[in-house]
Amino acid sequence: MSLKNNIDLANVREVICVALNYIGHVEEVENQFDKAPYKEPPKTPVLFIKPQNTITQDKKNVLYPDEVSGVQAGPSLAVVIGKQARKVSEMEAMDYIKGYTIFNDFSLPEQSYFRPAITSKCYDSFGPLGPAIVDKEAVADPHDLEIKTIVNGELRQEAHTDELVWSIPALLEFISSFKTLYPGEVIATGFPAGRVDVSVGDEVSIEIESVGCLSNTLVSEKDFYAV
Amino acid sequence: MSLKNNIDLANVREVICVALNYIGHVEEVENQFDKAPYKEPPKTPVLFIKPQNTITQDKKNVLYPDEVSGVQAGPSLAVVIGKQARKVSEMEAMDYIKGYTIFNDFSLPEQSYFRPAITSKCYDSFGPLGPAIVDKEAVADPHDLEIKTIVNGELRQEAHTDELVWSIPALLEFISSFKTLYPGEVIATGFPAGRVDVSVGDEVSIEIESVGCLSNTLVSEKDFYAV
Repeated sequence: MSLKNNIDLANVREVICVALNYIGHVEEVENQFDKAPYKEPPKTPVLFIKPQNTITQDKKNVLYPDEVSGVQAGPSLAVVIGKQARKVSEMEAMDYIKGYTIFNDFSLPEQSYFRPAITSKCYDSFGPLGPAIVDKEAVADPHDLEIKTIVNGELRQEAHTDELVWSIPALLEFISSFKTLYPGEVIATGFPAGRVDVSVGDEVSIEIESVGCLSNTLVSEKDFYAV
Repeated sequence: MSLKNNIDLANVREVICVALNYIGHVEEVENQFDKAPYKEPPKTPVLFIKPQNTITQDKKNVLYPDEVSGVQAGPSLAVVIGKQARKVSEMEAMDYIKGYTIFNDFSLPEQSYFRPAITSKCYDSFGPLGPAIVDKEAVADPHDLEIKTIVNGELRQEAHTDELVWSIPALLEFISSFKTLYPGEVIATGFPAGRVDVSVGDEVSIEIESVGCLSNTLVSEKDFYAV
């Protein structure tokens, strides 16, 4: 991780996430959007926030809460902002990126895309981030990367960033249209279709080509909160 | 503001907000919940998050963005956590509160309660907080406080915290069931029905009995971002 401008993943306070941004995933839920109240798919990126209590690092334990119906992993290529961005255009957006890392959006299983997801997605430690920031120069094309979800050494999901609905520059143009993006802020660009079910004790690794591998182990509530 | 345990509103990174928590407001939107996809009102508190770029203080300018259809104020009694809380019961919840302050959830007008509200609610400065933390001992009953929204000296809205659907202890029990609450975290307990439309240049003040007055002036994008 470069320390050039003091960007440190351990200081990240929240991650801005983009929902429904993989082609296969949008197809999966399309029939929900044909019905009331929407009657059409979203016309802009759909965002959600993982707040500070969810953020944790590579190799740290992740909580598997008591009395839940399940937990699922959600791998994402994450963009780290390198300089302050407000109302940037798609054309200039890449200039504001410092580099890339990996985010894993742990979540309880969700049936519907309508109920706000705060409760399912905001358990303590449900947002590992890391292991490090890879400078953008080291990634030839962020829209041409393979993403693998590996559970206990077994490949459980493969995806590819060429399936992004909204490209990284398009996301930066959209988000910076209403909020200033500051150096060190992190945007998780999207989550592939077909979330992977995980169990207590599982080691969950997300491997992204040229970016690295983010590994975390799910532990019980008793173990997670043990001093 | 007490400095006993270093809780400082200027360091608040996000505010957890409770939607649909005033009786009148729930009635206003009830017919939306009778229809698909919900077909029933929510069974638990509905939360949303105002992230760090929205948080600002008393007397600071608030952005009135260019090219929006309007801006509305949303007054709320806010609770400040005093000690770490995880899975607290309703019975013991009040012990975890340090005191009270005021939050104003500025937002673009919203037609539907279904689309995620990130874009409408997360413009820079859309979440003033303050002016100070009033110790809980100074507030006889947080469920018996008058809330006034005053625009340019004119009373525009009156509400009362006895209209809360989920009480403060019930909210703390619910939120601490999935996330640890840390000292200094802020929960905006709910927003009364009938949001108040505001315009560029308006001074918007929220007065809450025993808690204080939070005042902010809306300024144009050009003025807000002027160095």
